[in-house]
Amino acid sequence: MEDKAQIQEAIKSQGEVVRKLKSEKANRKQIDEEVAKLLALKAQLGGDDGKHQFVLKTAKGTRDYNPKQMAIRERVFSAIVGCFKRHGAETIDTPVFELKETLTGKYGEDSKLIYDLKDQGGELLSLRYDLTVPFARYLAMNKITNIKRYHIAKVYRRDNPAMTRGRYREFYQCDFDIAGQYDAMIPDAECLKIVHEILSQLDLGDFCIKVNDRRILDGMFAVCGVPDDKFRTICSTVDKMDKMPWEDVKNEMVKEKGLSEEAADRIGHYVSMQGGKDLAERLLQDQALSHSQQACAGLADMKLLFSYLQLFQVTDKVVFDLSLARGLDYYTGIIYEAVLTQAGGAPAAEEGVGVGSVAGGGRYDGLVGMFDPKGRKVPCVGVSIGIERIFSIMEQKAEASAERVRTTEVQVLVAAAQKNLLEERLKLAAALWDAGIKAEVMYKKNPKLLSQLQHCEESGIPLVAILGERELKDGVVKLRVVSTREEVDVSRADLIGEIRKRTSEAETIRPAQPLTLQGSSSRPL
Amino acid sequence: MEDKAQIQEAIKSQGEVVRKLKSEKANRKQIDEEVAKLLALKAQLGGDDGKHQFVLKTAKGTRDYNPKQMAIRERVFSAIVGCFKRHGAETIDTPVFELKETLTGKYGEDSKLIYDLKDQGGELLSLRYDLTVPFARYLAMNKITNIKRYHIAKVYRRDNPAMTRGRYREFYQCDFDIAGQYDAMIPDAECLKIVHEILSQLDLGDFCIKVNDRRILDGMFAVCGVPDDKFRTICSTVDKMDKMPWEDVKNEMVKEKGLSEEAADRIGHYVSMQGGKDLAERLLQDQALSHSQQACAGLADMKLLFSYLQLFQVTDKVVFDLSLARGLDYYTGIIYEAVLTQAGGAPAAEEGVGVGSVAGGGRYDGLVGMFDPKGRKVPCVGVSIGIERIFSIMEQKAEASAERVRTTEVQVLVAAAQKNLLEERLKLAAALWDAGIKAEVMYKKNPKLLSQLQHCEESGIPLVAILGERELKDGVVKLRVVSTREEVDVSRADLIGEIRKRTSEAETIRPAQPLTLQGSSSRPL
Repeated sequence: MEDKAQIQEAIKSQGEVVRKLKSEKANRKQIDEEVAKLLALKAQLGGDDGKHQFVLKTAKGTRDYNPKQMAIRERVFSAIVGCFKRHGAETIDTPVFELKETLTGKYGEDSKLIYDLKDQGGELLSLRYDLTVPFARYLAMNKITNIKRYHIAKVYRRDNPAMTRGRYREFYQCDFDIAGQYDAMIPDAECLKIVHEILSQLDLGDFCIKVNDRRILDGMFAVCGVPDDKFRTICSTVDKMDKMPWEDVKNEMVKEKGLSEEAADRIGHYVSMQGGKDLAERLLQDQALSHSQQACAGLADMKLLFSYLQLFQVTDKVVFDLSLARGLDYYTGIIYEAVLTQAGGAPAAEEGVGVGSVAGGGRYDGLVGMFDPKGRKVPCVGVSIGIERIFSIMEQKAEASAERVRTTEVQVLVAAAQKNLLEERLKLAAALWDAGIKAEVMYKKNPKLLSQLQHCEESGIPLVAILGERELKDGVVKLRVVSTREEVDVSRADLIGEIRKRTSEAETIRPAQPLTLQGSSSRPL
Repeated sequence: MEDKAQIQEAIKSQGEVVRKLKSEKANRKQIDEEVAKLLALKAQLGGDDGKHQFVLKTAKGTRDYNPKQMAIRERVFSAIVGCFKRHGAETIDTPVFELKETLTGKYGEDSKLIYDLKDQGGELLSLRYDLTVPFARYLAMNKITNIKRYHIAKVYRRDNPAMTRGRYREFYQCDFDIAGQYDAMIPDAECLKIVHEILSQLDLGDFCIKVNDRRILDGMFAVCGVPDDKFRTICSTVDKMDKMPWEDVKNEMVKEKGLSEEAADRIGHYVSMQGGKDLAERLLQDQALSHSQQACAGLADMKLLFSYLQLFQVTDKVVFDLSLARGLDYYTGIIYEAVLTQAGGAPAAEEGVGVGSVAGGGRYDGLVGMFDPKGRKVPCVGVSIGIERIFSIMEQKAEASAERVRTTEVQVLVAAAQKNLLEERLKLAAALWDAGIKAEVMYKKNPKLLSQLQHCEESGIPLVAILGERELKDGVVKLRVVSTREEVDVSRADLIGEIRKRTSEAETIRPAQPLTLQGSSSRPL
């Protein structure tokens, strides 16, 4: 801890900073941040009692997961990992920070949201912003040209958090990617199949997967008369079409970004289009678009994609939508985004959580080459599941259904009916643990039987193995079923088998199990 | 990216820094770090071709996990989590960074190893240094007074990495802790039982769990005549006894830390002692120690601990060792450390990896109170499994045994014997996925049958479902067992059942399964 006078000095100058910002009417966020620093300094100094007062909180935009949230999180991860493994994916892990230069130049304007580490001597480091760039770095560094991998890990963005809607500064990404030189659209179609499987299985309500292609967008911009150097910025305006009416989008293009009104109207004509394979076929005949080689290549691939999606029987949820743009710089081909279109099991009032984007991705054939000293490319396509929003929805569903979420898997509590049986309880518990039974004892010398039974009720433990003078004398244990209050004497020799038998049913519905696959095996081969 | 001239300027001034350090004969580490910065700058500038050259590496002291390492990692985690769950633990998660002040004053001298984030406006943040302090912050913040939880997550220390020995700057911790006001030594004994179970189950070779108590150490220092203000520093010297001979330890106490020779000799008398319950009993009779209330309390608890450990049948591996000190400031009672005493299955030449500390922990009754505004204490005891060293050992064992580690769980490859069957392959794969079968197809329109079979050999896929003109006509699939090359025709209707039947055996030995519990159920009740 720094010395008191030093802190007081710091408080004084920080106070000046805040006053100055306020007098300059600086933006709210900046003032808030400086005030937070001031309060932190004051807290460091402590109150009248001279004790250091801590600000008891997690960092802005982050949260702890309590055991109940963890149980839900494990359930969701288990379903998603199950799907990735079903499709033959391996998994890798990369460090939470990368050399700063590894992230430089990959995220366009969003680079300002990257967390840097303090220069404490040595390399300059940043926290990873996504899992895609570290994946590309990993491939280039290890000269890997073929891999199908998933990676579930936390990423970091100094964004404005909207935590009630599941938007954090620290959040999980759940990525599945296929790297390698393959025939067109086969891995791309599998990525969409995976999104379809996961969203169906998690039962989040109705959803829709929008697809488009960077080449179609770029070709469209070209034939609409957008100057080359405005492709990116116009693209990011198009990306807002799901949030604003066309008039506002057009306004931004024309007034803010200096596009001609005619060009904007031509764009407006295309971006209102939605369809399937038929739309791709129709646009291949489009007079203007057919002048763009890029657009034609994208449209031909879109047609092919839909033919594969038909084989996968997922076209019911997939829409070719020319207004889908997606922000990231590195996409080169197909792009997609899955959105929830109706609040699944969640209460209608919470509309903000139950709808919106829950998965996204696309093809990025150039990214690995950016890391290779000789620029060798490794074509990649992948998808990222928006797991935080899914957690929020699942939590709300659990709340709403008043579902009892168990946070442990304990099968049996070893209890005593009388005093002075601690040693016997510990001996029995050890024997159960060594036999692989999930068991607890209460950490009191002489707990009351009632409080032991209450503990079982509260944490959902199905069985109690009760020891008493009589049971010890007879060489038995009284096994009690918590839910029915039924009690039977079981000999010591039979106890483990009896516990296994009685909890094997419960096992199949324990929280860590994957959700059942919707419609599994119902389709004829 | 910064502009060229700017970078050249930076290279020039960084060159000056390096030259100056070298001329001053600064320490090696400092020079290395500055040279690294210089090289990074030069790399940024790129070679003659004007392209940006990236330094393709992970940050110092960190590593990627490839799929094989991940498979081993999952196996180890599964065994450890299985044990934690067997003992009824819940799990929580906390953010990777905390407010800087949360970590301040918790780690003594080691605080200099904490990674700070750059001040980018807003709160001052640091990467977590362990999982114990965030756990205490979590308990205080949520006013939790009782919990048994495990937490497996990465922590960060700017230490000098020794990666071949499994020491990294980013590494996993695997913590199990019991918080709550309970009767003496019951939870403490369970922590030791857990260490015993995990190390037995992982089959890492012989091990020994040393135990001691902070109160015994402090009492011993007092009766040996160590001044109060020297307890900590003398304690950290005692901690080196497993690495240096007593003469050197004594030298450090007397010459460096200014302890009297007599006091050092008295300490030497005690710290050479090892034993079990008997030693605790003997020391309770010790003339000098009996003057210390603290020591007596510690010794009485040590006696009690051993009586519980006897019930758990783990005393064969536990040694009361008065030289065990452990560095962290926050311990208040029992402390322990598990060490491997023989290189398990690892080759003898790799002695550095197979031996040494693999778990440690103790009681810290004051830490939560440091976070509570009113100083309310929550007694805690816990253990941290040294998972990185365990990974290293398991990896070496896998290498040495030439064990084939599967990195996917694919049950069947959907293959074609002729050309133009892509559509049929995709249709069949989708049907298998929807039935929950783990299946792959190759992403080529017309892959050769041989290359499809080779893929199975390489990645250990046990079955191939082969489609051909004949099979399609007959409504069957040719199911090939990769290991035996046996082939049978299976009707479409029976295919899923047949695949499930033929892979259910393989399931039980797949890598993700927990290792079998050593000696499970062999002990009579």
